Amino acid sequence: MENLRIDGERLWANLMETARFGGTDDGGVRRLTLTAEDREVRAWLEARALAAGCSVSRDRLGNMFLRRAGRRDDLAPIAMGSHLDTQPTGGKFDGILGVLAGLEVIETLNEAGIETEHPIMLVNWTNEEGSRFAPAMLCSGAWAGVFTEDYVRARTDAKGISFGTALDAVSAAGEAPVGAEDFAAMFELHIEQGPVLEREELTIGVVTGVQGMRWYDLDLTGRAAHAGSTPMDARADALLAASGLIRGASVIASRLGGYATVGELTIRDPSRNVVPGALSMTFDLRHGEDAGLEAMESDLKAQIAGLEPGISADLRQIWSSPPVHFDPGCLASVREAAKSLGHRDMVSGAGHDAAYVARRAPTAMIFVPCAGGLSHNPAESATPEDCAAGAQVLLDALLIHDRRITAPAEAAA
Amino acid sequence: MENLRIDGERLWANLMETARFGGTDDGGVRRLTLTAEDREVRAWLEARALAAGCSVSRDRLGNMFLRRAGRRDDLAPIAMGSHLDTQPTGGKFDGILGVLAGLEVIETLNEAGIETEHPIMLVNWTNEEGSRFAPAMLCSGAWAGVFTEDYVRARTDAKGISFGTALDAVSAAGEAPVGAEDFAAMFELHIEQGPVLEREELTIGVVTGVQGMRWYDLDLTGRAAHAGSTPMDARADALLAASGLIRGASVIASRLGGYATVGELTIRDPSRNVVPGALSMTFDLRHGEDAGLEAMESDLKAQIAGLEPGISADLRQIWSSPPVHFDPGCLASVREAAKSLGHRDMVSGAGHDAAYVARRAPTAMIFVPCAGGLSHNPAESATPEDCAAGAQVLLDALLIHDRRITAPAEAAA
Repeated sequence: MENLRIDGERLWANLMETARFGGTDDGGVRRLTLTAEDREVRAWLEARALAAGCSVSRDRLGNMFLRRAGRRDDLAPIAMGSHLDTQPTGGKFDGILGVLAGLEVIETLNEAGIETEHPIMLVNWTNEEGSRFAPAMLCSGAWAGVFTEDYVRARTDAKGISFGTALDAVSAAGEAPVGAEDFAAMFELHIEQGPVLEREELTIGVVTGVQGMRWYDLDLTGRAAHAGSTPMDARADALLAASGLIRGASVIASRLGGYATVGELTIRDPSRNVVPGALSMTFDLRHGEDAGLEAMESDLKAQIAGLEPGISADLRQIWSSPPVHFDPGCLASVREAAKSLGHRDMVSGAGHDAAYVARRAPTAMIFVPCAGGLSHNPAESATPEDCAAGAQVLLDALLIHDRRITAPAEAAA
Repeated sequence: MENLRIDGERLWANLMETARFGGTDDGGVRRLTLTAEDREVRAWLEARALAAGCSVSRDRLGNMFLRRAGRRDDLAPIAMGSHLDTQPTGGKFDGILGVLAGLEVIETLNEAGIETEHPIMLVNWTNEEGSRFAPAMLCSGAWAGVFTEDYVRARTDAKGISFGTALDAVSAAGEAPVGAEDFAAMFELHIEQGPVLEREELTIGVVTGVQGMRWYDLDLTGRAAHAGSTPMDARADALLAASGLIRGASVIASRLGGYATVGELTIRDPSRNVVPGALSMTFDLRHGEDAGLEAMESDLKAQIAGLEPGISADLRQIWSSPPVHFDPGCLASVREAAKSLGHRDMVSGAGHDAAYVARRAPTAMIFVPCAGGLSHNPAESATPEDCAAGAQVLLDALLIHDRRITAPAEAAA
């Protein structure tokens, strides 16, 4: 089993073949959830899974469960997978790499005639991206009990079409109740969507969790004033105040190993010769630990409290998501699988289906590098070697984990 | 003559009466240049000047020259005045105070039977605000030779109506060639449009000049990136870079006694969970001296050159106006006239007709406080006492200057 190798060329060919479903002229992929393109790629996957001897079921939200039997078929399956949908200007790897690597794992096991103790379950989660129907990770969230089926079906896209209508239009729904399946474990392979592995020339990220996030809106109100007749010390400049907060948030994030981003800033009634009197801005704070998030929020609030008296501030937290810590056992299996490759532990800054799955099942993620950290972009790129390495670690982690969580008595049976 | 007092109540009554021309429900004035409202206030002024024994002439751009004869009527007149037009949301004082105070000076001299050596010329300059026809100070500029008559007539408003067409529609033009009149001196009384006099509880600003201004556009380009998966030290955040420049410009302006304002800042494709990849912003730098402007620009350029390597910058100067230094003799006359009142020297941060007049004639300005430094606003406000004090200083400065610049032999003639 130690010498069992996935077929990197086949995996790459599958990646290139599926990139035709929604493929765009610039080399990207536009495959919004529950569209004709999504239907095509779903049908492709189902056909390949059936050909590989899997049983196929779908739940009532279109989540796809492709099952390879285990020696102990009464055990809960060990799951792999990710999602097939993309952003409007997406690429060839985000999501689908994790699904196609899972298919490659199954085909490799078949060819080698290897039977696992646990059944293996390849999963395609519906509507991970959240581009067509917000919020993101909608149907892994429903599987985990975060969203109800009714809530999911009632989401609408920009044209007012509901998720339920779109689901029915492409006949993606199945008969299985949402959340009926239990997993003994779940492994999700994904491109990093960040620059760390590439920068450190590593092949594998052992993803120990997902950062917690807190989103805020901040309104700053000073006093609009004539740029030529208001001395610097008589101003209440909302943009100058904002500049201090932007730099302060960056400093504290760097110090605490977190992330702070001001992505939007809009001056009210801007004019080049008027001191900005008011503005609105956003803060996106992220950290792997609650304590880190708490410290960043406290620092931001302290900085706001320390603004000059002429500036008033209204800070509102509009959304938050707690940090996710993946399962130590699953992580041990991934680390062991990656031991011959350059690897490091890391925390995902982006949300993933695995973050919701982790609420119900032992879970871990595997990252491989992507060029320049770029994703959600037609230029999104990963090398054939890194994709193959990721799939190999997925296979090995699954086999290691299958043995590890099977009691000796069971395994011997 | 030392006891000659202007009539503050009459001045105030005239201010309130003329505020009806274009008066708005919120107490402000909307009297765009060369509109029906402007025509009304022009007719009112002309009638009052004729009643006061003035001769009236208009040049071909509608600049109004209301002349009170002097004992030496061959001498160039000493001029006073400002403008009657307002911003779209203007107030009762910006511009018209300087004109009505000049009228008050003439009526006071008439009542006291005082003859000055030089003729006195009350001027209303067309289109000071620049709100309807850009640029501002258009017709004092034409008088000073900065703009040609053809250039002025060809300016268009937001509806595409040319200055020339608007001028003819309200019959505001006269026969006099533009710039035909020479002035022996010019004094312009105006509200400060800033908070300095009020803050220091002073009544009179002796305006020694107008700040030089330089306007810039700056584009910053970094790299858009995922807010959750791009470590702080791997970012090229255009907004973070801009924040440093905003604070740096503020610091250097404070240190050098200048003004720096970033009034507009627009992030390209903003999103709360994307590190800003590019943005555009403006800089408005002002200083009373060229050397100060030069130092501020050098500092800004040095800060831009010092940005992290991942940020590229494109700085373009789009407009500049050199500092104006008013005439020492005119300033001495204003200082002497103001000596019994709380006063200080100051540099105007806003442009004024006097800045162009100073290119051809010895010129000075007189400021009086306005509430909160507010102008270009319906709430623009000055007290009757301060308006009267300003008119008194205008009268006294004119009489002092008339004596000072008249050779003893002439005065005795």
